[in-house]
Amino acid sequence: MSAEPSAELTAEGSAVDGGSAGFDLRHHGDAEVRGADAALTDLAVNVRAGTPPVWLKTHIAASLDGLAAYPDGRAAREAVAARHGLPVGRVLLTAGAAEAFVLLARAIPARRPVVVHPQFTEPEAALRDAGHLVERVVLAERDGFRLTPAAVPEDADLVVIGNPTNPTSVLHPADAVAGLARPGRTLVVDEAFMDAVPGESESLAARTDVPGLVVLRSLTKTWGLAGLRIGYVLAEPDTIAALERVQPLWPVSSPALAAAEACCTPSALAEAARAADRTAADRAHLADRLAELAESAEVRVCGPAAGPFLLIRVVGAAAIRTRLRELGFAVRRGDTFPGLGPEWLRLAVRDRATTDRFVIALTKAIADTSA
Amino acid sequence: MSAEPSAELTAEGSAVDGGSAGFDLRHHGDAEVRGADAALTDLAVNVRAGTPPVWLKTHIAASLDGLAAYPDGRAAREAVAARHGLPVGRVLLTAGAAEAFVLLARAIPARRPVVVHPQFTEPEAALRDAGHLVERVVLAERDGFRLTPAAVPEDADLVVIGNPTNPTSVLHPADAVAGLARPGRTLVVDEAFMDAVPGESESLAARTDVPGLVVLRSLTKTWGLAGLRIGYVLAEPDTIAALERVQPLWPVSSPALAAAEACCTPSALAEAARAADRTAADRAHLADRLAELAESAEVRVCGPAAGPFLLIRVVGAAAIRTRLRELGFAVRRGDTFPGLGPEWLRLAVRDRATTDRFVIALTKAIADTSA
Repeated sequence: MSAEPSAELTAEGSAVDGGSAGFDLRHHGDAEVRGADAALTDLAVNVRAGTPPVWLKTHIAASLDGLAAYPDGRAAREAVAARHGLPVGRVLLTAGAAEAFVLLARAIPARRPVVVHPQFTEPEAALRDAGHLVERVVLAERDGFRLTPAAVPEDADLVVIGNPTNPTSVLHPADAVAGLARPGRTLVVDEAFMDAVPGESESLAARTDVPGLVVLRSLTKTWGLAGLRIGYVLAEPDTIAALERVQPLWPVSSPALAAAEACCTPSALAEAARAADRTAADRAHLADRLAELAESAEVRVCGPAAGPFLLIRVVGAAAIRTRLRELGFAVRRGDTFPGLGPEWLRLAVRDRATTDRFVIALTKAIADTSA
Repeated sequence: MSAEPSAELTAEGSAVDGGSAGFDLRHHGDAEVRGADAALTDLAVNVRAGTPPVWLKTHIAASLDGLAAYPDGRAAREAVAARHGLPVGRVLLTAGAAEAFVLLARAIPARRPVVVHPQFTEPEAALRDAGHLVERVVLAERDGFRLTPAAVPEDADLVVIGNPTNPTSVLHPADAVAGLARPGRTLVVDEAFMDAVPGESESLAARTDVPGLVVLRSLTKTWGLAGLRIGYVLAEPDTIAALERVQPLWPVSSPALAAAEACCTPSALAEAARAADRTAADRAHLADRLAELAESAEVRVCGPAAGPFLLIRVVGAAAIRTRLRELGFAVRRGDTFPGLGPEWLRLAVRDRATTDRFVIALTKAIADTSA
């Protein structure tokens, strides 16, 4: 989709920031790694490096023998339900989280939809495209972008929040997020990066006691399936049925269904857990190296971080980002996220060797651009 | 989607048949081959047998190496545009024709949408789900289900027609279809089966002189890609832009994009042309065998047929279909198509050997059920 949002935002209540509509909500990390003259080392897209694993690719390839048949999502739906200990009626498979946002925007009637920022911008873009006037609750940097429940207007009947949050990497406590639920309110929690959190400690995926809860999950980041378009929604059966009614027929391809099923097996979950531990260690290494850099440069790391990426604030970020591209590295600009600005950059967590190379380049980029 | 249509139909004008809403518009051939105790020989689904070809499967499998990256549809879009001799701005790739119907239903403002029946039921279902009141123009059996242009109300501002038509297999002349265009009217021509017609003789795909024309194309049937979800829309750039605005981000998976590109090469088009010729010959054989059967049974074949399927009328079709399942064959019921009824069955064209086996079974099923 290419539409720029144009609807005016309303601003009500001191904690609510209507902001300007001037953010490019449709800019995403993949644009940062395209069109470069040479291949860039990618710290812009939050997909785990070295993915998909060979066993998964082999499994998906085997599904190609059945391509002549229309997709049958029943087995994958059952696998996802079993993985979260939920009945199948609480599961809807979607062509990635992006489709889920569009379905929610169309199917959930909302008089006062609120999106908690900074966060992934697609939910707001999808709501606007569906004709909603969207209010932004912008969490403050001084609070470490942590959730302050009073920030959300009491009569908001649709609330969208990410956990852990892209791009801040903040992991809100499960109880704080669940505490946003209200009678008559749909509470959408985007857990696209939750499987990168060891133990998925703050996930609400398996919770059936939170009224109006809608949890979105992705297989894209941990498993390297961004190109396959597969994700799912967990919600009350009535909500699932409403979303399904606005979904096209045969929405998820057979290879994507095969992948979803394969990613729910005990061995796949164990592999994902090991990857989450490794990501946490790699993130700590990146944070340490940035802390060293901060001794001599104006770099601030947003933390504590829990996602497979770090958000940093650095003066002259735009020029630094450009210089980094010349040095062979793509990072994600932060200025397209409501609540952030031109001084922010998002860095994907990579292995130690890549991180070390990157921090050398970043140090050089800062020196070159501040000269 | 599982919703039954519930909106009331309006009926205006003598040639317009509002009919009842009692058709299961969401029944499709794939349901006929699922859940059987034993594997059935499939004459219910209109996907070419023995597909996808090995070279195409290999090409799609190679795309799996890039699954970690988000889909980039630019090359596939260019390939499709070049294949039809159109600028890229007239092309939109979709997750199958099913997604295109949903996009059209949402993006095209219509006061009086009309669907020409009998035809594939998804366009009407998608329009109804989007809140439209849909009128049906039902072509008459006595006219061989051929288009009578006067049948469409002058002020219909959205008209949907299939060519060649599923399930009647009727191929309307290109000029007759183009003649439905009017100022202020969107004319949607579903050409999902056009690549099975030798020479694509009546296609409007490359026409840029028909105002409001929207052509839908599929790669599913000829190439056996039903499981992959890939199709495309050809229309005026403004219409394409409007459809794109309501499409989710990254709508088509990377393997589907790889397939679309591969199916547009000259050698693929030549292979599709040979397949179309073979289908025509196989269809003639099926028609001949049915004509022989008609000498001793009440079987009528709808024709002249141009699609990879035949529509037949036979007394006791429901019981015959059930008996055929016991005999190992799945055929498509006709009673879910507005304008048809319980006496109709749709038969996919298969190779001669399969057809011969099938006609023996059909003969037996007729005898067994009329006893």
